[in-house]
Amino acid sequence: MADPDPTAAETYCDFAHELADAAGAEIRPWFRRSFDVDAKADGSPVTIADRSAESAIRDLISARFPDHGVIGEEWGTERDGAEWVWVIDPIDGTGAFVAGLPTFGTLIALLRSGVPMLGVLDQPISGERWIGTTFPGLPAETRFGVHIVHSSSTTELRESVGYATTPDMFTGEERTAWERLSGSLRRARYGIDCYAYGLLALGSVDLVAEASLQAWDYLALPPIIAGSGGVMTDWSGAPLRLGSGSRVVAAATSELHRAALGCLDQGATRYRDG
Amino acid sequence: MADPDPTAAETYCDFAHELADAAGAEIRPWFRRSFDVDAKADGSPVTIADRSAESAIRDLISARFPDHGVIGEEWGTERDGAEWVWVIDPIDGTGAFVAGLPTFGTLIALLRSGVPMLGVLDQPISGERWIGTTFPGLPAETRFGVHIVHSSSTTELRESVGYATTPDMFTGEERTAWERLSGSLRRARYGIDCYAYGLLALGSVDLVAEASLQAWDYLALPPIIAGSGGVMTDWSGAPLRLGSGSRVVAAATSELHRAALGCLDQGATRYRDG
Repeated sequence: MADPDPTAAETYCDFAHELADAAGAEIRPWFRRSFDVDAKADGSPVTIADRSAESAIRDLISARFPDHGVIGEEWGTERDGAEWVWVIDPIDGTGAFVAGLPTFGTLIALLRSGVPMLGVLDQPISGERWIGTTFPGLPAETRFGVHIVHSSSTTELRESVGYATTPDMFTGEERTAWERLSGSLRRARYGIDCYAYGLLALGSVDLVAEASLQAWDYLALPPIIAGSGGVMTDWSGAPLRLGSGSRVVAAATSELHRAALGCLDQGATRYRDG
Repeated sequence: MADPDPTAAETYCDFAHELADAAGAEIRPWFRRSFDVDAKADGSPVTIADRSAESAIRDLISARFPDHGVIGEEWGTERDGAEWVWVIDPIDGTGAFVAGLPTFGTLIALLRSGVPMLGVLDQPISGERWIGTTFPGLPAETRFGVHIVHSSSTTELRESVGYATTPDMFTGEERTAWERLSGSLRRARYGIDCYAYGLLALGSVDLVAEASLQAWDYLALPPIIAGSGGVMTDWSGAPLRLGSGSRVVAAATSELHRAALGCLDQGATRYRDG
């Protein structure tokens, strides 16, 4: 498998912007408006904005790259054995969206042979957009609007501000592991879903650790974190790809990442054995 | 004590906008920039942005209304026996500010004889500003930018989205009371400080209940909630004024407020007795 040429990388970047634009156009009219909130099988909320944003993205992909696969939170999986697969969460943080809080995000990942190479995190209300790329043979970078951004230089847990969406996402030994980690931080905060990874790429948050995630919740994020200079893996330190588990950790530096794994992996290993 | 004439109310509204503009101008240059974070005696973070924003507000008040009192989180109390007293929290949600999250707010209250009559909640990054007024003899109203806004029509706890900044703000029986309330809601969410009250005034959040607050954390909020059609009191149902305790509850409708008190007051009373 040859590396994609730089032109292909640029083409995919431009197209990812188009996808995020299309999703945002579907989402914005519903923000802070009345609409029905349905509960999915797992109890999580879903709205017409989630469904129509994902439809808009899928329509563009099937028109432009009909051979590419698509995996989306709302409308399922097509051609997931394809070389190139898009993974989509139209609204990550639907609870925030429903509450009128502009910290939800549209997540779009492009995978080649299961490995994420491009990630978009778009906040369609504030107009903030992160796009991270890690195409082999090209320099990894993350752009926030027109700026190239960098994660912080923090290396110590005790100097770090860390996030998780909610302590309730950690079950059993995961909770013990999170408490070990969060108790080592300068400050642990909760509640902002994918937006926390965006703040990590901007350098104002140092660490994010989460569990109970699905592929579409996180596959857009490793390119954004790596492109900003950080490290994002599963709790055992393995790179994230299609088929990784439900637990992720992102850190501003490799030193901080290693220290976080020291807290998390202990619990994760016990959890697998137990 | 005669009612202030409408001209005075308009003067104070215009002046409150000036105060919020001045605070925002001090805060914006520090957002997502490196700066020192100090810990206050209670462990909460404070930055140069907090201090300089409050100084800017106090300078304007002492120049324009030298007889008015001022109570501020960072620089203390002056003339709190005055007829008119301003109560200021330059950055409510300093933790969010430090993490680069635009859900903190500048809170400015104007009290007459201890009773809040005007409240501003300003988010200087997104440009969102709420101003609520409840001057006697004038219609209560809340503006969000140029729009007059209204809280939701929700009357049932089980249909409500409710917020508290963190479950850790509830101690002893307060925690039991919060769990009784949050367990009755459609969804309980955490983490956004004063911004939750702004979302309540916009109708996308139905309820906020909090404890362990100081005067500057909440005295700007009753005019914003009442002006939008909601109700905000302490946990016994008494109106909030200078000298109220540390526990507040805000609801979109009087029915919802009564239902929330049914969960909270039980615990609060036991707490006082215990």
